[in-house]
This record gives sequence, C-alpha cells and structure tokens, in this order.
Amino acid sequence: MTFSIIRVARTVLHVTDLQASRDFYVNALGFIETEHDEEHIYLRGLEEHVHHSLLLKKADKPVVEVLGYKVEKEEHLTKLEALFQSQGLKTKWVEKGKQRAMGRALRVHDISGIPLEFFCEMETVERMLQRYDLYRGARIQRIDHVNCAVPDVQKAYDFYIDQLGFACSEYTATEDEKIWAAWLHRKPTVHDQAFMNGKGPKLHHFAYWLSEPMSLIHCCDVLASMGYADAIERGPGRHGLSNAFFLYLRDPDGHRIELYTGDYLTSDPDFKPIRWDLNDPRRQTFWGHKAPDSWFNETSTFIDIETGEEIAVHEPLLEQKKPEFII
Amino acid sequence: MTFSIIRVARTVLHVTDLQASRDFYVNALGFIETEHDEEHIYLRGLEEHVHHSLLLKKADKPVVEVLGYKVEKEEHLTKLEALFQSQGLKTKWVEKGKQRAMGRALRVHDISGIPLEFFCEMETVERMLQRYDLYRGARIQRIDHVNCAVPDVQKAYDFYIDQLGFACSEYTATEDEKIWAAWLHRKPTVHDQAFMNGKGPKLHHFAYWLSEPMSLIHCCDVLASMGYADAIERGPGRHGLSNAFFLYLRDPDGHRIELYTGDYLTSDPDFKPIRWDLNDPRRQTFWGHKAPDSWFNETSTFIDIETGEEIAVHEPLLEQKKPEFII
Amino acid sequence: MTFSIIRVARTVLHVTDLQASRDFYVNALGFIETEHDEEHIYLRGLEEHVHHSLLLKKADKPVVEVLGYKVEKEEHLTKLEALFQSQGLKTKWVEKGKQRAMGRALRVHDISGIPLEFFCEMETVERMLQRYDLYRGARIQRIDHVNCAVPDVQKAYDFYIDQLGFACSEYTATEDEKIWAAWLHRKPTVHDQAFMNGKGPKLHHFAYWLSEPMSLIHCCDVLASMGYADAIERGPGRHGLSNAFFLYLRDPDGHRIELYTGDYLTSDPDFKPIRWDLNDPRRQTFWGHKAPDSWFNETSTFIDIETGEEIAVHEPLLEQKKPEFII
Amino acid sequence: MTFSIIRVARTVLHVTDLQASRDFYVNALGFIETEHDEEHIYLRGLEEHVHHSLLLKKADKPVVEVLGYKVEKEEHLTKLEALFQSQGLKTKWVEKGKQRAMGRALRVHDISGIPLEFFCEMETVERMLQRYDLYRGARIQRIDHVNCAVPDVQKAYDFYIDQLGFACSEYTATEDEKIWAAWLHRKPTVHDQAFMNGKGPKLHHFAYWLSEPMSLIHCCDVLASMGYADAIERGPGRHGLSNAFFLYLRDPDGHRIELYTGDYLTSDPDFKPIRWDLNDPRRQTFWGHKAPDSWFNETSTFIDIETGEEIAVHEPLLEQKKPEFII
Repeated sequence: MTFSIIRVARTVLHVTDLQASRDFYVNALGFIETEHDEEHIYLRGLEEHVHHSLLLKKADKPVVEVLGYKVEKEEHLTKLEALFQSQGLKTKWVEKGKQRAMGRALRVHDISGIPLEFFCEMETVERMLQRYDLYRGARIQRIDHVNCAVPDVQKAYDFYIDQLGFACSEYTATEDEKIWAAWLHRKPTVHDQAFMNGKGPKLHHFAYWLSEPMSLIHCCDVLASMGYADAIERGPGRHGLSNAFFLYLRDPDGHRIELYTGDYLTSDPDFKPIRWDLNDPRRQTFWGHKAPDSWFNETSTFIDIETGEEIAVHEPLLEQKKPEFII
Repeated sequence: MTFSIIRVARTVLHVTDLQASRDFYVNALGFIETEHDEEHIYLRGLEEHVHHSLLLKKADKPVVEVLGYKVEKEEHLTKLEALFQSQGLKTKWVEKGKQRAMGRALRVHDISGIPLEFFCEMETVERMLQRYDLYRGARIQRIDHVNCAVPDVQKAYDFYIDQLGFACSEYTATEDEKIWAAWLHRKPTVHDQAFMNGKGPKLHHFAYWLSEPMSLIHCCDVLASMGYADAIERGPGRHGLSNAFFLYLRDPDGHRIELYTGDYLTSDPDFKPIRWDLNDPRRQTFWGHKAPDSWFNETSTFIDIETGEEIAVHEPLLEQKKPEFII
Repeated sequence: MTFSIIRVARTVLHVTDLQASRDFYVNALGFIETEHDEEHIYLRGLEEHVHHSLLLKKADKPVVEVLGYKVEKEEHLTKLEALFQSQGLKTKWVEKGKQRAMGRALRVHDISGIPLEFFCEMETVERMLQRYDLYRGARIQRIDHVNCAVPDVQKAYDFYIDQLGFACSEYTATEDEKIWAAWLHRKPTVHDQAFMNGKGPKLHHFAYWLSEPMSLIHCCDVLASMGYADAIERGPGRHGLSNAFFLYLRDPDGHRIELYTGDYLTSDPDFKPIRWDLNDPRRQTFWGHKAPDSWFNETSTFIDIETGEEIAVHEPLLEQKKPEFII
Repeated sequence: MTFSIIRVARTVLHVTDLQASRDFYVNALGFIETEHDEEHIYLRGLEEHVHHSLLLKKADKPVVEVLGYKVEKEEHLTKLEALFQSQGLKTKWVEKGKQRAMGRALRVHDISGIPLEFFCEMETVERMLQRYDLYRGARIQRIDHVNCAVPDVQKAYDFYIDQLGFACSEYTATEDEKIWAAWLHRKPTVHDQAFMNGKGPKLHHFAYWLSEPMSLIHCCDVLASMGYADAIERGPGRHGLSNAFFLYLRDPDGHRIELYTGDYLTSDPDFKPIRWDLNDPRRQTFWGHKAPDSWFNETSTFIDIETGEEIAVHEPLLEQKKPEFII
C-alpha cells in the first residue's frame, strides 16, 4: 500500500445543546475540554496529546458529521484521494485553517456510505496523563474505536482489509460462514473500526478506552449522583468478543458512547482472527444483563460530506436475528 | 434487655448435590472449606475465625433449615427461651455435641414464623485473612446479613426492635407511611436482618461482605469462565438503600446469595434511620439494570424446627406493587 | 460500667496556615469542608453524618489540642468526670455553645497525660456518601483511630481496658511478655486507640478509613500531581498488625495522618487478641519498604487542657529497639 | 528499512533451581506454565497466544542467555544477518527444531555487546485471557520490555534508531544534553527496549504488563503470604518516566522482574519524545520510596552467543551520579 492509516482519531458529532453536552462529557465522564467557542466544544482524553478527539458542534439535529482517521504522512492524503476516486466514491478537501487545530483533511464516503475524514496534522496540547488532580468520572484516557451498522458487512470488510490495509482481530460468522460482524484495526488493539450487520450505514457507538476497570464503576456512581442514571443503557458487563469490560451510555442527544477496557495487543502479524459463532451466548455477553432493545434498534445518523443531508439507509443483507444475537 | 445478640452468624441450607455446591461456593466464589463429611460442608469467609458461617446439608429438597445468631453470653440463651415462650412461640434446644463445632443452641420460630437459632459458642479455626495466596473468586470475607420476605413487616420490625434489641438503619415507607421494608442491625453495619413486604416467611437471600469492589467484578469473570454466567441474576449495580455495590447469584439449588460491599458504620446511637420513599427510583437501583422477575418472585422455603415440614406462607398485608418497586 | 464510650470521634489540631492545610486536606486528600471561619476549618469524611471529625485551629505552634470520644448518653459524661476525678486526673467542662456544633464536653487528661474530650452531642449534616461527584483524592470515608506514644504501655492498657471498657484486638509483646504496643477498640473495628512504647505522651498519628485500596493509590498520584510527593512518609504497604493497607502522610505542619483500609470486624466478644512478637518482621511490615527514621522519631505534641502549655514527656520504660522494631 | 521488527518477544534466563523458579513465577506471580522438561520451564502471560515469552533453563550460574525479538517475516532474518555482519557484529543461526516451539533464529550481539535473537515463528497455544478461573498473583498479562545498562547510551540509541528502526518515546538528558537513558519501542507502547548509562552491557530487568493496578497490590500480598516479602526490592510506586505504576522483584536467582502498568499508546508518528532532566526528582519517582542501593548496583550478566562465556563489561562513559539519579 502506498499510504498508512495510523488509527481512528476523532468523531465529529452534532448536538443540540452545548451546555448539556458539556455537563455530560466533561463534568460527569471526565473529558478534558481543550477549548470551545459559541458553536463548538473540543474534547480529549487524559492521555491524548492532540487538540481533540471529540468535536461537538451546535446544530438542530443530533447527527454524525464524520469519523476521522489519522494518516502517517501528509502525502498519503493524495494517495487516498486517488483510491476513493478510482472506486467512484465521493471525495472533498477541507483546507487547512477551515477546521480548528487541523491540517488539511480529505473527506470521503466509504464503500458503505459512511462519511470518513483523513488527516495527518493536528495541533498538539499538554497531555494530562500525570495531572491526576484533574481525574474525574470515568477518567477518560483515549479514543479507542467506532462501531457502525452496515447492510453488507462482507463488502465493508473487504474494502477495509484489501483497500485500506486494516487487519481483522475477531469476527462473528453465521452458520453458513457469512460474516455477521467484524472487528478491524490499524493500531495494534482489537479495533479502530467495527462493522455489524444492520440497517445502515449508521453509527452504533464510538468508544473510549479506560486504563482500569474501577474507573468504569466509579463513573456509574458519578452518573447516578448527578442524575444521569438513565444514561446507562447497558452494562457493566463483559463481552466475549474483544474481552471488553464495557459500559454503554447515551449522551443528552442520544448518541451512544462506550467506555471500554480489557482488550489485548494485536501487533503480531501472525495473530489469527478469532471466530465467534453467531449463536454462541458468550460472544456478546460473557456475563451481564441482556442488552435492552434500544441497544439494538437505535443508532446515530450520518450526513453527506457535501450536502449535509442525512444519508439513506438500507436493510441488512443477512436476516436479522433475535436481538440478543445481533452483535 | 437481659441478653445481647451480637450478630447474624450462620445460615443452614439444604442442598441436593454437595459436590455441585462445593464447585459453586468454594471453587467459583472462593469460600474456605473448613471441613466436610458425607452429609455436610462447612464454609467460612477469609476473615472469619469461627468454624463456619454457612452449613450445607445434603437433602432431597433445597430448603432453609435455620438462620443462626450469636449471643454474647451462654446464659443469654435461657433469657431468650423465656422471651420466646412468653410470646407463645415454639422453642427447642439442640444440645452441645449434636451439631459439629457448636455449643448448645436454642431454636425458635420468630414472630413471622422464621426458624432462628441462637448460640454463644462455636469452635474457632485459623483466620485466613492474611493467606492471600488462597484468595479466589469473590474473595469472600464474612457473613453480612439475611433478608426475608414476610407478610407483615411492621410486626416483624416491632418484634426485632422492641423484643430483640435491634436498631433500624434504613427503611422504605409507602405514601401513607406504612413500613414496606426495613434494615435492622445488631452489629454496627447497615443490617444483620432485613425484612420486606411479600409472601412469606421466606428467605430472599443471605449475603457476604467483600472488602473491595473489584472482587465482585472478578467474581463475575470467574463465574463466566467456569460456565456459571447464568448464575448471575442481578448486578453489578448499586442500591440507594445501604449504598451497597451488589451482585445477586443463584446457587445450583436456586438459593440466592448476595455479594456486597460499600455500606457504612452505624455505631452512633443517635444515627437517624434513613427513610426511602417506595416510589423513589434510586432506592432500589441507584444505578444498574432492572431486576428480573425472578428476583422478585423466587425465594427459598423455611422448614419447621420440630417437624422439618415446609412452613406455610401468607400473602403480604400491603398491596404488591410493580416488581421494580418491591424492594 | 455505668457509661458507654462509642468511638473515637474527632481530632483537634493546631495548624499555622489554614489555607495551606485546606489545600492539603480538602484539595489533595478529599476531605469535605463543612464550614470555616477565620480561625477554624471543620472537616469530615464522605460517610460522616456529623458536623466534623477533624478540627483545624489557626495557631502559632502545630500542636494537638485534644482527642475526642463520643459517648452513648449525655449522663455518661458525669460518670466519666467522677471516674477521672477519683483517679486524681484533671477534668474540665466545656459548655455547650463554646465549641461550634458541639454539646457540652468533658475534657480530661488520661493516665498517660493525653488530653481527651468526651461528648455526646454534635450537630448532624448531610452525609455525602452518595455524592460520588464530590469524591476526590483519597475519598476519605470516616475517622478510624488515633495512635499515641506513651512511656508505659501497660499502664495505659490497664486504664483503657479496666476503667474505660475498651477491648484489645492485637498487641505486641517483648520476649519477656511485656506489652510493647496495643490496639484497643470500642467500636468493633481493630482500634479506636493504639498505644506504643515511646517517649510520650505524644500523638504518633490519627487515621482515616478508606472503603477500598485503589483510593489510596490514586491519592499518591494526586499528591504527586499537586507537588505533595514529599508528604508521603511511608507506604503504600501492608502491616501484619491489623492487616492494614496503609499510607502515612505528613501535613504541612508535620502532623501525621494515616490512610487506612483492610482491617476486620471485632464484634465477637470471644475474639482472642492476636499476639505479635516484637521480633516478627511481618508484624510491622507484612510487605513494603522500611519506615524512615522520621516515622519513628517524630510525633506531635499535646497541650494541657487548662494551661495550653505543652505537656511534658517521659522516656519509655521498655528499652528502645532498632527503629524497624519499634511498632 | 528492508525488515520489520515487531516487538520484544522473549527472555531466556539461566536459573539454578527450576522448582524454586516455578514456585516464584507460577505459584506466586501467576505465570502460565506452557510446558516443561527436566531442563526447561516455558512460561507465558494470560494474554499471550504464543508458546512462551520467558524461558528458564537449568544451569550452574544465573545469567541471561539472550533477549528475543519477533520479526514480521521469515526473510527479514536474512536481512538482519546482513546488517549485523556489515557492522562487524557476530551472528549465528539456530536452526528450527533446535529450540522448542521455535522456527529458526538469528542470534547476534548488538552494538553494545548484548546477545539478541531474532525469529519469526513460534508455535501458538491457547490464550488464557478469558480463563479468569486461572488468574493468580499478579495476573501476568504479557511481556512488555527489557532494560539494559550500557556504557554508551548514545551509541546504543543511534544503533537502535538508525539501524533497527526503533522510535524513542522518552529520554533522560544531562545538563549538557547528553543522553543518559532512553526508552525505545517498535510496538506502540512506551518501550520494548530501554537503555541507561551504567557498567555494561548488563540486564537491569525484564518487565511484564498488567491490565490494572490492583493486580500489582494483590501480588505484594500474595508474595508476603508465601514468604517472598523480601523479593520486593522497590515499589509500589510510580515513575514519572512512562507513567509506570511499578513493582520490582528479585527472583530466587536474583534476576530482576518489573511488574508494570499505566503507560500509554505511542502509535502516532508525530509523537515527540518526552525529555526528562536528569535532576528532575519526578523523573524516576513521581511518588514512592527511594530505590535501595541494590536496585542501582545489581544487574544480570549476559553470555556470549557462541562461547557461552560471560560478556565483559565496561565502565559507563558518563559520570555516575548519586544512586537516586541513575535512571
């Protein structure tokens, strides 16, 4: 490959009330607020030395503008443009200076229609890893991954593996060996990007990594103290898949964020992807309460990189199973 | 009062398969097995210096034989006999030597029909608190409390407070100030004995205290590793009541055990009982998934101290509310 | 006994800079500040429903004014006055209204000369146990104990056991069975009051209980982030004695506070005191670095309940051993 | 570069008593024993899917045979041979089948004389990550790094960066900007290989990563329970460098192992190495007791890849400072 994608690097969300979002993300979850203006809040985790990994934009509708990936070198952006154009996929440049703290960015739609953004440069800021006096809530460490519902997981899988250079760490297969869901990575963790069979393209959740499990429990306590007990949609529990100790929360606009710890290093090139049977009950829930229906049925909408219109969704190719078997 | 009850001290359960129970309590939860014979297993927590706090007896039916309380002095047993007899309640002596490791015991039925046992003397054994190499599973520390469903909580409350010298730490009241549930203690923790409005008398659960919350999470992982994921009935979560970080498990016979940490000291005599409104959603679940129906509907049966027959149960006096409001 | 002491209840310290003390106790350690005026700061732990358990008074010299104990009933104060007077020990009343939030208090010097205070009544305040959003630093829960150096431990031991009704949980004995140190309690934990052989009477430290060990580690991190790394005098480590997971800190005036978790319930009246040999290396340090010399040699000075003068100290009766064997 | 080193992959130690080593590594620390014969024990962490990452060989003297690195492709071994030969450094092939579970390996001496081994292939085994019932002691997860004392850190730094393709995450500089110590990585953590100024080449320690800090504390308790309290040489504490929450242990032969958690992701190519001043007290000890002299003065000896003789050591180029400033 002539380019190298480093890792998932940011999520850009539209939210309807910036102060409500700040209360949730900063005061309850413990994100660090790098800066804000009247229309934006820029957030990062304690370990992150970059300007932000979560951008909240004031808007009328709570949609997902784009998922951002960092590339190794500036010239890789041009290579990526050529790739997407060669596949007949929409591309668009956002010049440096147009986005706060960012170098120029290439926005595209991927093979499933998901709006992606590639960039190489982001301003750096003070890393707060050793400012333990600022640790609050879940002690958010760093962005970990995004998880999208798409109608054709095999197509998405092939595109990310063959065209973009991702590797697969784990996947779920149906009885006839169709890929139901897949965990794909560039950085050597279990994933940067997950896909699962469902009406899409839609964002199921974005996730932040925690450095130890007690932060997740303490976050539940803090949320309850602040009146956010209902924001806890699922968990705490552990997935068989990825070994994640997880908590799923819904933000004030309904966007879903996962707090996540417990996965493993995937740097060995001869690591064999772990296959999970769709009907293996340990796959989704190694232990823990069943996920509520909302966890299966509610997702965030993407918008078009050019028009800003909501992206049309399609029914999944594989038959939808009972909720407890979806992911 | 002319006697002093120290604390809840043991639970005597009938189980149908001793080896299955050992796998669950010893290998998965981490109880210390003091000794066993063909018909009994004697278990204790890491901190306990007494012979056992949980006695499992081989039997055809999984019932609860008796709940045991330790008293300060041997002569208090005679005072208790007089008290129960004066109230027309059944009493029975079990002489020293009849029960392994125990001095003589007074068995009675309390005002609700619950079979209780009072004793002063139990053999002591090595305390394993500093044998960290033996810590397993939930790192069970010590017996904490028992929780019973009774048809008339006010009657049980009055008997334990006025006749037995318990104090109330927290309680749940209906809109018209009827006591729906009550947490009563002799040792200065939140409870030794809880009562809640329900068909009874029945044992809802017995509970063990853990010294820190990560043991509870690790126990979930161990249970899942060993094929016991379905034994987790409810939790992890936190009750508003007692501030307990909790996990409810069903043993192989369906008896319910709670793992519990996070409560507080109640030694101050001027500590005011905390009142919870039956309709306060934080009361039962400060945060966490809703309890499943089984948690509300399934309880363990007591047997008569003389006949061994199952004790008749009665419908509760107060109207039963929606499951999520029961305790 | 005609009175009942409930538990150690407060420490009154003189400090030279209230703002420096607030930075340390509130901002770094996570005490809750109930209130303050120009000369006082009133502090409590998250679990405490009383006005304060630590009172800092602005003064020229950092001394210890008094150690406070709560009694069960108001009339017990008179009984205690009679007891101390019968032993020829100084007593003094501080009437209600003279001390913020307190009922009347009896101040005395105990048999070793330590200034004690007994009181029954203190105003109650909101308990912050479930205000997890306010948890900071070490998440201080509640006062646990005080530890004093005295020249004659046997004399102090006899007085507290025989005259004041304390029980002994653990003790250190020399080769010829002299009591070197003793852990005494009224509330059913390992101690309210410890004594050890040394030049005294002096306060070695006062201690607060934490609900789990990670709070202690996080506190170390917070202290270091705020420039207080040097305040850590000893630990983290574990004592064999009491099974305490401990951290010893020196406040800005040099007063020593211990953060403490891991002990056990001592409510059983037939609990046998645990004897430790002075030469058992596990006694003081089950594991952990050796204590520095300062931990052995530096203590806080008490003042006279009437004159406010520093109390004279005496050399210990038992021969002082190498520092690593002192406690 | 025409080859790609993936990560540090194993340490091969000579030990004098295999059973003593097993007691320490398996029973106390919680390593998984993959297999053994009369002369070897093969150990791995809970997360590792490879045959072993620690090989203990029975021998008369406790030395270090080799430090092993995994490469991406088999043909990279030949490229590495050419590189080392071009620099006049000794090389030697160990054919497949000569070492249990391993493909062919290239052994070399690096620029400082350290015996290294490169290999691509190792047999895979069951990963125990979700066998929580087997978690013991420190819950050892995976090999993290090795740390060597060398006389000329700048030379080692240049060789690993320029010739082997490592990146630097953090380093210590003297007042005149000489590199005193350096943390170098191939996998995107803080390090695979650290160098520090000292008499060498010698192995200071090898390190394993833990998934959360309580495992480290529990390991201290287990060690003390089993009579290994004296094996704890330094810690628990936190380094400023790498943000590591650390514990240093000496195995029965005196080899030093570090248990380690708390570092961060280093995958961003524009991550700027963090510079620490040699005189910054936070660098080595963010908080914690001072390291004992042994930690500075005692290291393990390497042997020659051909002769098996101990490798000669040289005095460091930079002036040795007071012990508390060495790393």
